[in-house]
Amino acid sequence: MAVYTHVSAEALEAFLKRYDVGDLVSAKGIAEGVENSNYLVETTQARFILTLYEKRVAADDLPFFMALLDHLADKGLPVPPAIKDRAGVEIQELEGRPACLIRFLPGVSLSHPTPAQALAAGGALGAMHRAVADFAPQRANSMGQATWAALHARCGRDLDKIAPGLYGDLAFTIPDLAATWPATGLDQCAIHADLFPDNVLMLGDRVTGLIDFYFACTDIRLFDLAIMHVAWSFDATGTRYDAAVGDALIEGYAQHFPLSDDERTAWNGLAVGACIRFTLSRAWDWLNTPADALVTRKDPLAFWRRLKIYDPKLASLTKTLR
Amino acid sequence: MAVYTHVSAEALEAFLKRYDVGDLVSAKGIAEGVENSNYLVETTQARFILTLYEKRVAADDLPFFMALLDHLADKGLPVPPAIKDRAGVEIQELEGRPACLIRFLPGVSLSHPTPAQALAAGGALGAMHRAVADFAPQRANSMGQATWAALHARCGRDLDKIAPGLYGDLAFTIPDLAATWPATGLDQCAIHADLFPDNVLMLGDRVTGLIDFYFACTDIRLFDLAIMHVAWSFDATGTRYDAAVGDALIEGYAQHFPLSDDERTAWNGLAVGACIRFTLSRAWDWLNTPADALVTRKDPLAFWRRLKIYDPKLASLTKTLR
Repeated sequence: MAVYTHVSAEALEAFLKRYDVGDLVSAKGIAEGVENSNYLVETTQARFILTLYEKRVAADDLPFFMALLDHLADKGLPVPPAIKDRAGVEIQELEGRPACLIRFLPGVSLSHPTPAQALAAGGALGAMHRAVADFAPQRANSMGQATWAALHARCGRDLDKIAPGLYGDLAFTIPDLAATWPATGLDQCAIHADLFPDNVLMLGDRVTGLIDFYFACTDIRLFDLAIMHVAWSFDATGTRYDAAVGDALIEGYAQHFPLSDDERTAWNGLAVGACIRFTLSRAWDWLNTPADALVTRKDPLAFWRRLKIYDPKLASLTKTLR
Repeated sequence: MAVYTHVSAEALEAFLKRYDVGDLVSAKGIAEGVENSNYLVETTQARFILTLYEKRVAADDLPFFMALLDHLADKGLPVPPAIKDRAGVEIQELEGRPACLIRFLPGVSLSHPTPAQALAAGGALGAMHRAVADFAPQRANSMGQATWAALHARCGRDLDKIAPGLYGDLAFTIPDLAATWPATGLDQCAIHADLFPDNVLMLGDRVTGLIDFYFACTDIRLFDLAIMHVAWSFDATGTRYDAAVGDALIEGYAQHFPLSDDERTAWNGLAVGACIRFTLSRAWDWLNTPADALVTRKDPLAFWRRLKIYDPKLASLTKTLR
């Protein structure tokens, strides 16, 4: 959420000459996205987002992400395609970082989506899953269910510094969930895996952009909706559930993919998994973000508290949620 | 250089309804300016910079700054006017902060201006000084020569933590300069007082914007050029002087205001003063910026080293510059 790598106007001007996009008119560093450096760049022809990928995005993953953007944009979805330079290259290097120029999309990220907006956003996720039916590239989910036990172990007993008992509660919940996780049996496809309200641009009740695909991967299709559900349907502290928003997300999604009986059975487990995934990643960041970092640390417990809604029985067995 | 206060899309939409500027299309938090929160806002009609003033800009000073912007824009200078709401109000409140909506200007801030660009920028400063001949409001320079001894005392012996001997060197230099400071006798007017390359937008060799007037004040007219000279004519470390750029700034400025004999006599002192002013403010920030701040601390010595160019005699008497 900051500009980590400074790109001078002179370097940017030279960079843009690789492309057929016109001349530089304006460039502003913007506070957006996961830990990358982003510039809103205007040329005499159009506007773009220039992203320099900092260490958190692996350069090896960029071809998957860019192929997915291009695939979805080609299908007419509101997804910003990566721009090819005169030689057809999308992934460049700038200031020693991998860098891509991506089309700018209008729209704003909502802080408090209404049910009507959630309906449209759920529909956009369904349309995205429809559009990837013929998308062949695969990428393992680096934050998927199979990784949680190891991340829990790496966080270790320091978790109890965040909330006394959190280490033990996760040590109980993660294997419990693993025993019933639908690793096979449910549809899998390319998923966004991080479709928080931040990553959906809207104008009124219309979705104008799905952005920030840097956690996209191949995983259970319905897990994408579960992530969206835990991200959209609560207040920032994770204590107040908005059923109208949650229901609207599922309703919008079901216009493209009605939930099967197996999916309904798996739903609560998938949502609990989404709660664990963001509790763990936020906890890791919390414990490992230096005090002088440019990043604001986000409360890990805001996702842990959500567990209560999705599995009250599991919640009642954990000390930190009682 | 960060977004300190978050404005939700919903709050921004409501805010824009006070104005006759069309509907919200896009909003991006931008990393720009002194310690304010800035958003690049696009509506169905135009683009704007929304600034929320954090603690460093005193709300009482905003009417002076806005009057100056409007005065200069009215005179046809490339200065962004503040936008009035339907009731004629420019200075609003948003998220508990004073806030202004200001027109967006194209152009980029250069990192390494060429002499041709410095010529144009010096000319723009001269044109600005011409345009304020009939600008009546006054504001004392809160970082002017009269304030340096007190700021030096407030920094205190901690200055020696930045460079051993810096406290004593400034204790010698500040009164030495005060004895010859042309507090009267030279033209005074509204000056920008912070016209670094960051604050000049350019397209090629043309100035398209003068921005960030939040240090503007009433002071010696030529002191504005001296500040620009120390800011533009050196590399980032303050060790390498670029005479071609420095000369071009003065040449551009002289197209509007040829330097008088008195001004030529005073020049070196004014430039030394500019070096002291930025050494002191950076030193204060250095000593008082918490380690977890969102702001990158800037090297105070980068301005102290510049002293050598403007007054080699003075420089030879200071331990830290020998």
